[in-house]
Amino acid sequence: MRILLANANTTEAITALCAETARAAAAPGTEIIPATPRFGPAVIATRAENAVAAHALLDLLAEHAGAVDAVVLAVSHDTALDAARQLMPCPVVGMTEAACFTACLLGARFGLATFGDTAMYQELIARHGLTTRCAGLEGVDTTPQRALADPEGTAALVGAAIRRLAAAGADAVVLGGAALAGMEPQLREASLVPLLDGIRCAVALAEALVRLAPPPPTIGSMAAPAGRESRGLSPALSALLRGRTGAT
Amino acid sequence: MRILLANANTTEAITALCAETARAAAAPGTEIIPATPRFGPAVIATRAENAVAAHALLDLLAEHAGAVDAVVLAVSHDTALDAARQLMPCPVVGMTEAACFTACLLGARFGLATFGDTAMYQELIARHGLTTRCAGLEGVDTTPQRALADPEGTAALVGAAIRRLAAAGADAVVLGGAALAGMEPQLREASLVPLLDGIRCAVALAEALVRLAPPPPTIGSMAAPAGRESRGLSPALSALLRGRTGAT
Amino acid sequence: MRILLANANTTEAITALCAETARAAAAPGTEIIPATPRFGPAVIATRAENAVAAHALLDLLAEHAGAVDAVVLAVSHDTALDAARQLMPCPVVGMTEAACFTACLLGARFGLATFGDTAMYQELIARHGLTTRCAGLEGVDTTPQRALADPEGTAALVGAAIRRLAAAGADAVVLGGAALAGMEPQLREASLVPLLDGIRCAVALAEALVRLAPPPPTIGSMAAPAGRESRGLSPALSALLRGRTGAT
Amino acid sequence: MRILLANANTTEAITALCAETARAAAAPGTEIIPATPRFGPAVIATRAENAVAAHALLDLLAEHAGAVDAVVLAVSHDTALDAARQLMPCPVVGMTEAACFTACLLGARFGLATFGDTAMYQELIARHGLTTRCAGLEGVDTTPQRALADPEGTAALVGAAIRRLAAAGADAVVLGGAALAGMEPQLREASLVPLLDGIRCAVALAEALVRLAPPPPTIGSMAAPAGRESRGLSPALSALLRGRTGAT
Amino acid sequence: MRILLANANTTEAITALCAETARAAAAPGTEIIPATPRFGPAVIATRAENAVAAHALLDLLAEHAGAVDAVVLAVSHDTALDAARQLMPCPVVGMTEAACFTACLLGARFGLATFGDTAMYQELIARHGLTTRCAGLEGVDTTPQRALADPEGTAALVGAAIRRLAAAGADAVVLGGAALAGMEPQLREASLVPLLDGIRCAVALAEALVRLAPPPPTIGSMAAPAGRESRGLSPALSALLRGRTGAT
Amino acid sequence: MRILLANANTTEAITALCAETARAAAAPGTEIIPATPRFGPAVIATRAENAVAAHALLDLLAEHAGAVDAVVLAVSHDTALDAARQLMPCPVVGMTEAACFTACLLGARFGLATFGDTAMYQELIARHGLTTRCAGLEGVDTTPQRALADPEGTAALVGAAIRRLAAAGADAVVLGGAALAGMEPQLREASLVPLLDGIRCAVALAEALVRLAPPPPTIGSMAAPAGRESRGLSPALSALLRGRTGAT
Repeated sequence: MRILLANANTTEAITALCAETARAAAAPGTEIIPATPRFGPAVIATRAENAVAAHALLDLLAEHAGAVDAVVLAVSHDTALDAARQLMPCPVVGMTEAACFTACLLGARFGLATFGDTAMYQELIARHGLTTRCAGLEGVDTTPQRALADPEGTAALVGAAIRRLAAAGADAVVLGGAALAGMEPQLREASLVPLLDGIRCAVALAEALVRLAPPPPTIGSMAAPAGRESRGLSPALSALLRGRTGAT
Repeated sequence: MRILLANANTTEAITALCAETARAAAAPGTEIIPATPRFGPAVIATRAENAVAAHALLDLLAEHAGAVDAVVLAVSHDTALDAARQLMPCPVVGMTEAACFTACLLGARFGLATFGDTAMYQELIARHGLTTRCAGLEGVDTTPQRALADPEGTAALVGAAIRRLAAAGADAVVLGGAALAGMEPQLREASLVPLLDGIRCAVALAEALVRLAPPPPTIGSMAAPAGRESRGLSPALSALLRGRTGAT
Repeated sequence: MRILLANANTTEAITALCAETARAAAAPGTEIIPATPRFGPAVIATRAENAVAAHALLDLLAEHAGAVDAVVLAVSHDTALDAARQLMPCPVVGMTEAACFTACLLGARFGLATFGDTAMYQELIARHGLTTRCAGLEGVDTTPQRALADPEGTAALVGAAIRRLAAAGADAVVLGGAALAGMEPQLREASLVPLLDGIRCAVALAEALVRLAPPPPTIGSMAAPAGRESRGLSPALSALLRGRTGAT
Repeated sequence: MRILLANANTTEAITALCAETARAAAAPGTEIIPATPRFGPAVIATRAENAVAAHALLDLLAEHAGAVDAVVLAVSHDTALDAARQLMPCPVVGMTEAACFTACLLGARFGLATFGDTAMYQELIARHGLTTRCAGLEGVDTTPQRALADPEGTAALVGAAIRRLAAAGADAVVLGGAALAGMEPQLREASLVPLLDGIRCAVALAEALVRLAPPPPTIGSMAAPAGRESRGLSPALSALLRGRTGAT
Repeated sequence: MRILLANANTTEAITALCAETARAAAAPGTEIIPATPRFGPAVIATRAENAVAAHALLDLLAEHAGAVDAVVLAVSHDTALDAARQLMPCPVVGMTEAACFTACLLGARFGLATFGDTAMYQELIARHGLTTRCAGLEGVDTTPQRALADPEGTAALVGAAIRRLAAAGADAVVLGGAALAGMEPQLREASLVPLLDGIRCAVALAEALVRLAPPPPTIGSMAAPAGRESRGLSPALSALLRGRTGAT
Repeated sequence: MRILLANANTTEAITALCAETARAAAAPGTEIIPATPRFGPAVIATRAENAVAAHALLDLLAEHAGAVDAVVLAVSHDTALDAARQLMPCPVVGMTEAACFTACLLGARFGLATFGDTAMYQELIARHGLTTRCAGLEGVDTTPQRALADPEGTAALVGAAIRRLAAAGADAVVLGGAALAGMEPQLREASLVPLLDGIRCAVALAEALVRLAPPPPTIGSMAAPAGRESRGLSPALSALLRGRTGAT
């Protein structure tokens, strides 16, 4: 089974880190294919970057349409998730989506911790329809850069945030963002509730979907595009918009 | 990997049918262990039966605590799901829960079709927090008995219900109930959207959870019972309520 | 008028305490008939116990079907409420349900205070459809045992919780759990908002329903079970599942 | 026990009719005191009339503050309910509120049938926080006048509406509006689910509240007005706004 | 363009202050016509006053029906908004409604700050359907009187409340109540998010609606009243209830 | 006042049509500046196209940042609305957002009619937080092409859809999509409720926002990007991401 691990920012080092996590989580026989967009933001931290990255990500996915069995979006904002799902002829799983759904399979409610502002994650959880399953969000007041400079102090801050979420009723905590997910081994022991890494959850769910092999819908807003004309897009992407036949 | 496939009614034939589906869906190396409760309703079709079956199911699970890697609840009402999740030292997945979450990974909204009244399923979806992801429920006016007697007529009725759900915005349709799930091969070809069998989805998600191996929470309402006294329950169940140590 | 006061745990002393409160609240001419299940948890504090107690409670109710005019569930989790309502040929009222609805008749929003974790109460209020009427829940960090050992300290803790709920917009506060309800006389004077004891509210509402005498529905998910087969259940319960005629 | 039955429109005949229903529903020892506003709409059928009637109703209630044990608002729009509740030193119950809450004590979801437009009732149910308990609303295309002229044809229309609500999952149906409530005896036999008359439910719940005797809140938005100055209002109403002491 | 600026309390000084703000916000060519009710509360701070003021406000509006191009309700509770909208043959805008909608056009979520209790504002936002767009409400523990006596201390309290709302995710803050709105120039500089004055927003939106000139609906619950009889109301108001033709 | 009218598809003819409508709606002194993206879909009808167009639209807006007073997004999916609002140093209004909010200022609930599938509009209304204000959506089974070929037949279909929405409680109907909006003059006379054209509403609201001149937030998820690095984006867009100073 071939799973495309698609980063949505242009920082290859992050793609590599995510690929390492994905490979550790993958079942035997699963091949992880990391990929980085040609253009777009170095890191996605704002609404504007997220909107631009949506195109960059679809541009990247189109290159692989028909050549992979599933896609994992290695971006904690689940950028362009519904568009990717419509566009690609295979299952697509977002990493935060995967962690949230996994959390729902483990307990009644979950929390989410991240670095910085939580607004975009709160809206993402609402779009996934899981607001009533969410016990709270905690935005730790730091940045990936400061976290690297002071790992112990940061772990203490994040640990406190996780305890607040558990006290608010979270039976599991989703780690939002690659930087935070990387701290999971460090945080695990002290945590009273399971901590969920989006990449690991997404790989597991993508493998499950490939095994289930549901046919794509042929009507409705998730049916593959057909006959859609465009200008200035990559050959692969414009071909996919004209119809999957042309792309595979 | 050993997955307990726990029916919640006392009809062994249904357990056997579900086990067959589960085995077909399981990955190589997964062992499916079917089990049927000692007491309770022959089939769960009402609120009262569902409440009684909750005890029967926990009674059954307690016999297997510590001896299996995961549990799939082979009952479309996801009977006693949160209690089972708290009680057992391993992941527990409900079949309708699994199908609904799988549907959410495939599209924007899903529908559910079943035989008879939809009220209990509507409430179940609300408890799962997925009301805003649900495009509608269709209760086909028939019974498992009549469906067996007239498979073609029933397939036509169900097919029409599926089309109504798709027209209402369902990108996938969950088949609620063992009888309906058994018709999936018959219905598949004519359907414009994927049809989801709860047993197959639950096995796939249970395997994924076993692979992810999240530790159980040690605080909150999903932490294992400890020190809880009871009267008249089975030795295994009362031991689990006193504390997991005693049961494994 | 005969009201069955059905405990859902097996501790007779709690049944007796609740019966005392119920008798004090009952109108002249109302007879309170206390009853305790044959089996099940000594006290319900966890999800697993609550699921087991559902069967124990229905087993108990079935013994009285046709011989009482109404049922009050003397268990703060409103255990098996919808199943009991379907099963019994008379009105059934849950104690927390009753307190919450009474609170809604007194003000705009209510709070709920209890000992320990609030997750199960939060879900219960959601199932009752009253989430938007709930200003908050407070879980006082103590146990019934510690409360007995230090009544003054506990009253101070609970009083502070009630003040926080009032500050959050609660016009009335529901006391969740028998232990807390027993403290009502002690707490009343200092409270700026009314405190509601579930047993008292449930008795009053049950009397009101008996007086209104609505006929039971004959279709839908609340219509009485009929023709439902089972195994290993008590004669009274299995008879009720086969059809009310057989049970009265 | 003295219950003020306060109409909110100025049609004495409707007050009399509601009083008759209320007396039939009241317990022995309950005195029903019918009252009609001095000014306002003849019948409340529009948003503008409902807003005007709020003042008329409070004007009426103020005359009785301190002289009655409870108030039943005999107006199906639950006009000025929260204001009346704040203003009066005794329990206040709205008739549609009462019927909806009673329905919630009988089943999982309820429906509401009325003559004409349903928008105001839909918003009322939302304000009561019961949207998720409501299976639907049916506005029968007729008027009280036409209903009087053709009772049989109207009963057929309403009966069909009730059947549609039951099919949509209503376990009970609230009859919205005095004209429709008056048809209850005629409709009862053919109905598969209980039909609820707001006046009867409100009297029963008001009696229950008087028996429970909760103290009024002394803080928050439901605490009695104090020190509020006004111009051009009736002496009784302006006195109540200045503080209950002045009114009783 | 003539905009009626209708206060709902009887304090002429507040009408004058609001008119000053409205004139400063109005476009060239817009005439602001301030008006004060004949009767009702001096200031609206409670539910009971708000209900009474609804009639007073409609009584006032009726005097101007047909003589103005739009109405701005200069009352922060958006008193009688839907009734006024139905009654008047021109657009009607509430000041808090206007500020909340403007906030939604500027960011993802907004907060609301006011003096005293927030319950009525929370319900108002829910009635406007904007609960999910609201990041929080802050009730500053003071009164308009104390604010006048200690403007600096009050500004510090309000500033802190605004900072808490911004930290909770508010991209803009609505100033609820005339007294608070008057402090906007003082608060503006220190605020990290825009502060919205309801009068200014309402004038801008009313001008926009007049320009768009949508025809009124002729069916449904917002269609103008016709043929409605009443007693004891002002000639202008009773004429409007009988039908707009008679009023203009 | 200069308003940028930004199309999000690459069809200049649609830009020109929208500009014509915008100019007719604009106040004297407002200059409408039409603009079309350099790349992207010819028409946006699918999720994938909408995601790609988000980048194209931001690319286009960046060229005008600092040179216009407001932006109207001339795309019925309100593409990239929140990102544009964050990115630009001036107010940004989406056309469907504007029509929905205008509808909320006119009545209690609104409907939306469009050609084809309604799923994306339903989600858009949910994202705007207006689900409870929406009485329904109608997807007329036709395409812009067929509508052009048979204007009368299409008008009949749309008219019937509008009547269904009004019957479902819509006090106003939003016309979703440029093709449908173009039919407004034809549909107006027969409609019992106002029909809202997004472009006209957006121009009016944009003018109102420019007049109100709220300062942009300097914290939170809507604060302007600063210091964000990217690759392969246009000079104007990458400059805006690095900080507004660099772009103006």
